[in-house]
Amino acid sequence: MTSYLIGIDGGGTSCRAAAAAPDGRILGRGKAGAANILTDPETALANITEASRAAFENAGIDPAGITQARAIVGVAGHNVGDAVHYVKRRLPFAAAEIESDGLIALQGALGEKDGAVAILGTGTIYIARHGEAVSYIGGWGFTIGDHGSGARIGHALLQESLLAFDGIHEGSPVTDSVMAEFNNDPRDVVDFARLAKPGEFGRYAPRVFEQAGRGDAVALRLLEAAATTVDEALDVVVSRGSERLCLLGGLAPLYRPWLAERHQKHFVEAEADALTGAVALAARRFGSRPEVGA
Amino acid sequence: MTSYLIGIDGGGTSCRAAAAAPDGRILGRGKAGAANILTDPETALANITEASRAAFENAGIDPAGITQARAIVGVAGHNVGDAVHYVKRRLPFAAAEIESDGLIALQGALGEKDGAVAILGTGTIYIARHGEAVSYIGGWGFTIGDHGSGARIGHALLQESLLAFDGIHEGSPVTDSVMAEFNNDPRDVVDFARLAKPGEFGRYAPRVFEQAGRGDAVALRLLEAAATTVDEALDVVVSRGSERLCLLGGLAPLYRPWLAERHQKHFVEAEADALTGAVALAARRFGSRPEVGA
Repeated sequence: MTSYLIGIDGGGTSCRAAAAAPDGRILGRGKAGAANILTDPETALANITEASRAAFENAGIDPAGITQARAIVGVAGHNVGDAVHYVKRRLPFAAAEIESDGLIALQGALGEKDGAVAILGTGTIYIARHGEAVSYIGGWGFTIGDHGSGARIGHALLQESLLAFDGIHEGSPVTDSVMAEFNNDPRDVVDFARLAKPGEFGRYAPRVFEQAGRGDAVALRLLEAAATTVDEALDVVVSRGSERLCLLGGLAPLYRPWLAERHQKHFVEAEADALTGAVALAARRFGSRPEVGA
Repeated sequence: MTSYLIGIDGGGTSCRAAAAAPDGRILGRGKAGAANILTDPETALANITEASRAAFENAGIDPAGITQARAIVGVAGHNVGDAVHYVKRRLPFAAAEIESDGLIALQGALGEKDGAVAILGTGTIYIARHGEAVSYIGGWGFTIGDHGSGARIGHALLQESLLAFDGIHEGSPVTDSVMAEFNNDPRDVVDFARLAKPGEFGRYAPRVFEQAGRGDAVALRLLEAAATTVDEALDVVVSRGSERLCLLGGLAPLYRPWLAERHQKHFVEAEADALTGAVALAARRFGSRPEVGA
């Protein structure tokens, strides 16, 4: 009996699965609901299973076969000890490894090549790979990290809007638009911010890019500050030997023209998506393709 | 029967009261536990009553007399609608007004003179008074305000410590000291920060002042950034006509030498403390001293 491979790209809103031949050739795809192993491991397990069965069906294979498959499960918050162990023991596969969503994204983006990805979304993290060595920079979360992220940019915009309200900094159309949205009442901004999750701050980030493009002075200042944090992190990645940089995440296309000239020559397009990366990792680890360097 | 005055300086850790003659002359003082009308109004009411009775006893007056007294109650978080009304209706005095802790501090610091106070503690707020007009700048809380506050300085130090850990910014003895305290494990810093209240971040602020004084490069950069936010707010206060600036709060003595030369000539020492300010406000509003400008 063929031992198929499964790649999983699990996220907070949905879980995607791909079924593949032992050589990593993708045969079918499936999708199910959220797979957040930290906040809701039971639902994550159910959706990983459902997406895998759907991928098998899509490939024309009996879904019961997932119990014989070997899988790489890429998930956010993979590095959380107990939750990983709990979920890993309960996965319905013959063998499985849980990896970070960042690592499967890197594998998809760079394939077998060395280099680094900058994941620029609600949060930010930089992952570099040289041979088998993988290193992480940043990604410490909204509270004291994730510089340059959508959440931090949105947070900075709300902050500047209050500073403009108080006359401490110059306002601009972008801060005016924020204050108007909150009835020109700073207390409404504060009430929102006090309870806002990173994603809610992040919804203000595209406005900063858009207004900066139109020359809004405050948006330009905020975006230049954010781009500097990304450039500084990329400097570290490049100084450690990464020649290929791939920008991923929802803000990647917005950010690219704002990043430093010195980095532009390093930027490459992603070869494939994270789900493809998960399958490729499964093929390397469990399939008929040998491990690189092994 | 003499209608005594009462001044209350209520805070998150203790509540102080002063009993005064109708002309505002302080006759006795008392103290009790916390008076946070927002988080625990019943305890606040009990402690306001207890401190007032203690002040009457200290003055050699029958504590039963507090029910005939007229009071100014200065409390943190006074501007919170329902809680103020709830507490005000239940205060044991013949008449009372609830004011912000900032306003009684201003009254104590400046007496009857015009000017402004900068309250530089765990949070930051600027309060200016011209005649009867009082205006507030800043004070929007830790999440998107309180620039230059102890909480923001401490937060910035933890942030820089992670940036140094990742090699994105240069480290220094002050960031080394933070990382050592967290076992050189950035996850421990993140875990602390995720749950830290403003006061817990603020405990790192004195270290930044101290190390900046010794020439630590990171501490200097953080402190200069913080001092700039205070200078910018003071610029607004001065531009609106305040010639006398009084720095209050736990960080005031630390900050003063780091603030811009252009502000130094405006700085004055506080005439008296917030409790004295509460009594003075009570004398103006309820006592034999006429309202200024009335």
